Amino acid sequence: MATEYGYFDDAHREYVITNWINYLGNEDFFGLISNTAGGYNFYKDAKFRRITRYRYNSVPMDSVGRYFYIVENSTVWNPGWKPCKTALDEYECRHGLNYTRITGAKNKVRASVLYFVPLGVKAEIQRLTLTNLSNEMKHLKLFSYAEWCLWNAATDGENFQRNLSTGEVEVEQGAEWTAIYHKTEYKERRNHYAYYAVNCPVQGYDTDRESFVGLYNELSEPQAVLNGHSADSLAHGWSPIASHYIEVELAPGESKDYIFVLGYEENEENEKFNNSKLKIKNYELLTSLGERDHHIINKVRAHEVIKRFSSVEAVDAAFAELNALWDELLSKYHVESSDERLNRMVNIWNQYQCMITFCMSRSASFFESGVGRGMGFRDSNQDLVGFVHQIPERARQRIIDIASTQFPDGGCYHQYQPLTKRGNNDIGGGFNDDPMWLIFGTTAYIRETGDFSILDEMVPWDNEPGSEVSLMEHLRISFNHVVNNLGPHGLPLIGRADWNDCLNLNCFSMDPNESFQTTGNKTEGSQAESLMIAGLFVYCGRQFVELLETIDRSAQGQKSAMLKDIIASANTQVDAMCKAVEQYGWDGEWYLRAYDYYGNKVGSHENEEGKMFIESQGWCGMARIGAEQGMPEKALDSAARLLDSEHGMGIQRERRYFLPQQPLGHHRPDRSRKRQ
Amino acid sequence: MATEYGYFDDAHREYVITNWINYLGNEDFFGLISNTAGGYNFYKDAKFRRITRYRYNSVPMDSVGRYFYIVENSTVWNPGWKPCKTALDEYECRHGLNYTRITGAKNKVRASVLYFVPLGVKAEIQRLTLTNLSNEMKHLKLFSYAEWCLWNAATDGENFQRNLSTGEVEVEQGAEWTAIYHKTEYKERRNHYAYYAVNCPVQGYDTDRESFVGLYNELSEPQAVLNGHSADSLAHGWSPIASHYIEVELAPGESKDYIFVLGYEENEENEKFNNSKLKIKNYELLTSLGERDHHIINKVRAHEVIKRFSSVEAVDAAFAELNALWDELLSKYHVESSDERLNRMVNIWNQYQCMITFCMSRSASFFESGVGRGMGFRDSNQDLVGFVHQIPERARQRIIDIASTQFPDGGCYHQYQPLTKRGNNDIGGGFNDDPMWLIFGTTAYIRETGDFSILDEMVPWDNEPGSEVSLMEHLRISFNHVVNNLGPHGLPLIGRADWNDCLNLNCFSMDPNESFQTTGNKTEGSQAESLMIAGLFVYCGRQFVELLETIDRSAQGQKSAMLKDIIASANTQVDAMCKAVEQYGWDGEWYLRAYDYYGNKVGSHENEEGKMFIESQGWCGMARIGAEQGMPEKALDSAARLLDSEHGMGIQRERRYFLPQQPLGHHRPDRSRKRQ
Repeated sequence: MATEYGYFDDAHREYVITNWINYLGNEDFFGLISNTAGGYNFYKDAKFRRITRYRYNSVPMDSVGRYFYIVENSTVWNPGWKPCKTALDEYECRHGLNYTRITGAKNKVRASVLYFVPLGVKAEIQRLTLTNLSNEMKHLKLFSYAEWCLWNAATDGENFQRNLSTGEVEVEQGAEWTAIYHKTEYKERRNHYAYYAVNCPVQGYDTDRESFVGLYNELSEPQAVLNGHSADSLAHGWSPIASHYIEVELAPGESKDYIFVLGYEENEENEKFNNSKLKIKNYELLTSLGERDHHIINKVRAHEVIKRFSSVEAVDAAFAELNALWDELLSKYHVESSDERLNRMVNIWNQYQCMITFCMSRSASFFESGVGRGMGFRDSNQDLVGFVHQIPERARQRIIDIASTQFPDGGCYHQYQPLTKRGNNDIGGGFNDDPMWLIFGTTAYIRETGDFSILDEMVPWDNEPGSEVSLMEHLRISFNHVVNNLGPHGLPLIGRADWNDCLNLNCFSMDPNESFQTTGNKTEGSQAESLMIAGLFVYCGRQFVELLETIDRSAQGQKSAMLKDIIASANTQVDAMCKAVEQYGWDGEWYLRAYDYYGNKVGSHENEEGKMFIESQGWCGMARIGAEQGMPEKALDSAARLLDSEHGMGIQRERRYFLPQQPLGHHRPDRSRKRQ
Repeated sequence: MATEYGYFDDAHREYVITNWINYLGNEDFFGLISNTAGGYNFYKDAKFRRITRYRYNSVPMDSVGRYFYIVENSTVWNPGWKPCKTALDEYECRHGLNYTRITGAKNKVRASVLYFVPLGVKAEIQRLTLTNLSNEMKHLKLFSYAEWCLWNAATDGENFQRNLSTGEVEVEQGAEWTAIYHKTEYKERRNHYAYYAVNCPVQGYDTDRESFVGLYNELSEPQAVLNGHSADSLAHGWSPIASHYIEVELAPGESKDYIFVLGYEENEENEKFNNSKLKIKNYELLTSLGERDHHIINKVRAHEVIKRFSSVEAVDAAFAELNALWDELLSKYHVESSDERLNRMVNIWNQYQCMITFCMSRSASFFESGVGRGMGFRDSNQDLVGFVHQIPERARQRIIDIASTQFPDGGCYHQYQPLTKRGNNDIGGGFNDDPMWLIFGTTAYIRETGDFSILDEMVPWDNEPGSEVSLMEHLRISFNHVVNNLGPHGLPLIGRADWNDCLNLNCFSMDPNESFQTTGNKTEGSQAESLMIAGLFVYCGRQFVELLETIDRSAQGQKSAMLKDIIASANTQVDAMCKAVEQYGWDGEWYLRAYDYYGNKVGSHENEEGKMFIESQGWCGMARIGAEQGMPEKALDSAARLLDSEHGMGIQRERRYFLPQQPLGHHRPDRSRKRQ
């Protein structure tokens, strides 16, 4: 089934494409990669530890990337077509599970590059295989290209007074490998460095962008490539890059592999430098400041990785290990149905997507620049439901990390930075659906693992040491945050917004320099209420009660009494919320969406536009609010009718999700599901 | 005298160049323009009101700009060489005073573009003159190009969740002109719009970047230009641009002028829209949302400007007006010496540069991205000295604006945003030399104008209405801010830094995510003291006293008594500072630079590196501290000796600046200076 983007290859669990992107890495070192090898790498945090540069919304589109320039006589081409865009005789990009393989061929030379991040390694491996498909000897020149980001992706494009003056590198040339090191600010106050190595000697290198690219040149015509040789530049300030220049001879039919390693390492403060022996045996070392540089990086960690991946066998082994992990991850949940598209989505791509959201949580993509936001509080909790069966241990840690950013009143930072694990002050909080998602995620985790011990974990407020309380207490406070923030109709105040980040019912900003997405400028006396949060509250509230009751079964004495109190009051609050929705949240045929700042209805038949919203139908429906009066079914019927009449869409209603969920007490639920 | 950049043409007061940049506009509408027409426009504030896009530190370098594509058969070229970089038969760029003229010729067609911002107009005029130098008829195609910035230059490159969905335009086609309007967020909460018009009908247009440029194309090969015709695209979201497509016929020797106007206008809230008449007579109007757009911009203001500059005569008149202004500005200060380079610098370029710094104050250049900072408190005060004789009225307002951002304790925001005129919280304050610069600037203003009334102006603290006190009181508090922030040696605490922003003696940040330029993380019990501030304090303190004494002459009774008190205590403080410098700030041969956080000397012969700094020699010397012991002269001798021995530079000492300045009471000083 080919689309404008490409087609699925189920046998290899790959998507063969012409225009799409993929994610490399599933631990701490990540890469975003497009089908032309565009994209960038970062360690943990796309904002604070950006390793290579990428230019969002640039012309040309999708620039920069991990480029290889192949020169044969006057022809220059790239395996991924970009940036030279020389017409290729063959082109294919295969995006697999945390790996991408790009193959291009020109004039009977094939170049195939496998990109992936080995498990437990802070580096991206780029295995380039060059094959001579002709009957003659081939004399080629190969140039690699990577552009370093000065660590903080936000200031990298802003503070040139600093950026253009601080760049520093080291180049290490030897018999077994050639490594280019990026160490900007390493001398001063950083304990981390990046490197780009290849497993062979080279004919030259470049580390200064202008020397390699040329003053006015585009990346499609770098000066060094046009010259046919590198400039052997040592960057000091301006824009540091990493490029290897390698001359390649290929006999008819011959294949050669080049293993490039683009990595990141951190050193302890007391072992940062290596002054005693500036050079390792038989290796020449060059630095930005030449002889005046008494601060040579201690490279022990990088050398370990470079040496480990010096052979094709080692790369194959690491790649096999990555594939084995995915065999294991995908083996935990499997559906066999007559619908191959359903099977494909459920058994491979949806689970893969869930792992990606676990790692990134919308913080970085080809749509999110990676500097505007961190990991979402709400997002991370709901994404968790998708991967908890794959990696329960990591899901557990994620829940603790998220809860640790919560405020003592139950409010939440809307986002947090994965590097520091601290709440993101730039965005702040006040999105009133956030607290409920912690209950949602935690119960999903326990439902999957049966691990009630997580509730006893001691978790701080706002990362403040000494403020720790049990996770269970975080859940109780989260529940109460809604109870303590009710509006005039007894419905939850929406705060800055709810699940729909852009439903800013309290924002009447006329200051165009404020972000209308994240401003709630009418905080005083706001009446804006959200039916979506009401549904979410009842849905999660009932799970919260079920959780308490389950614990209570094995509890005694004072603890049991305390639990019974909480259960009683929680039930009271949930019932009250149901009444409020039935009385003020029901529009006659469907659930309202909200009341705005002035108390006007949103999502009512009375409205000229936006008569019905899906969020409140879904959540109030799943919460079974007004079930006795058949409200959930009525709302779905109305939605189907509306969509049918307005958009001519025949909707088949799906009630399966009204079936009771796996009970909380039951450990390791049977996952085999059949559907014909 | 040609350099690698170009040469001066004194007759025309132009710099003829191959690689340099210029500034257009000297009021509210500005443009930065390079010799290849690269750069961008903004209204008042390079961060909050960016009108067109520019990509700093991009590949290709210096992109985007105000580009004209000229197509003749298969040849595509630009008058400014970029972005096509087609080899030109002729090329010249003349940067004049607030205008730039770029001329290119190819295959006997000459294209000359004059770029300038007329006085009192919020628009950049681009007068393109096409001349047929051949004996045959020429059939050309002309494409213009401008890329809109979504108003806030900081978020424009960051928040794509919003940016890619909000772009909106209008296109107005008629007999006399064709105008493309950028109105993103105008419907919602902005009262301003931008436009790009040409004074003729067109054969087509584009407002969507991808439609014009193509998916993967570079600006050197836009798809529409390659196709030979526009795509007539209407942007809705993604990246809105403005491009006119014009077919041009030129008889042998014929010349044609095209006047492009790139402008910005604001409407009152109650007159934003023009729903009654969607179209003006004989004009076709197209919008992003087509017929569904009931929010057509009220274009009265833009139409006035477009109509006004519909003729070459009108453009010539406006250009003459701009040149006349500069004749007048430069007539106020003139030096005749035997050194033509001195004459050139003093009479033209230094004064021009001062006007630029008045307008920009380092907030935007090809080095400052325009988003990282606003107008400098210190910078604006010291720049003022350079232009106060040219535009005393504007200098007066600038002083009031700057003082209005000051804190009640005399501390200052280090920068403020020109659009809001409010202090920049991102940078904050604590640079302890800042307050003295307000005294420096104000006395310079009075010395030039004799306008003592400025001292009675009521000026708020931190822009807080109701907090107003007289400017004189601001000066007194500024003076006291140093007095109230003395260190263990009785020298001024440096705070976060002084004139040397990077001298962060209190910053020991090991958090690489902090900016080492603007972090003073050791605030508790800091001892770091600055000799530069000490010198600045004495220098400005004496001027402050002179100012008070001058006022006192015409004062009586209580006011006079009060003044005498302030004078007495000021003199005491200044004398004490001199003593402190002589005792703890003198290294034996020169003035120390500072004491760091730990009380260690900086800028002493005891130091291994950085034995002597210029800032303290200059300011303590100009303040004549330790004159009795000949410290100023000794310091200069030592500096000369050191430079001579270390760098083999023979230094001629210049003592002229030790001559007494123009007395404060004396109005409109005689500016004629002779030097042989």
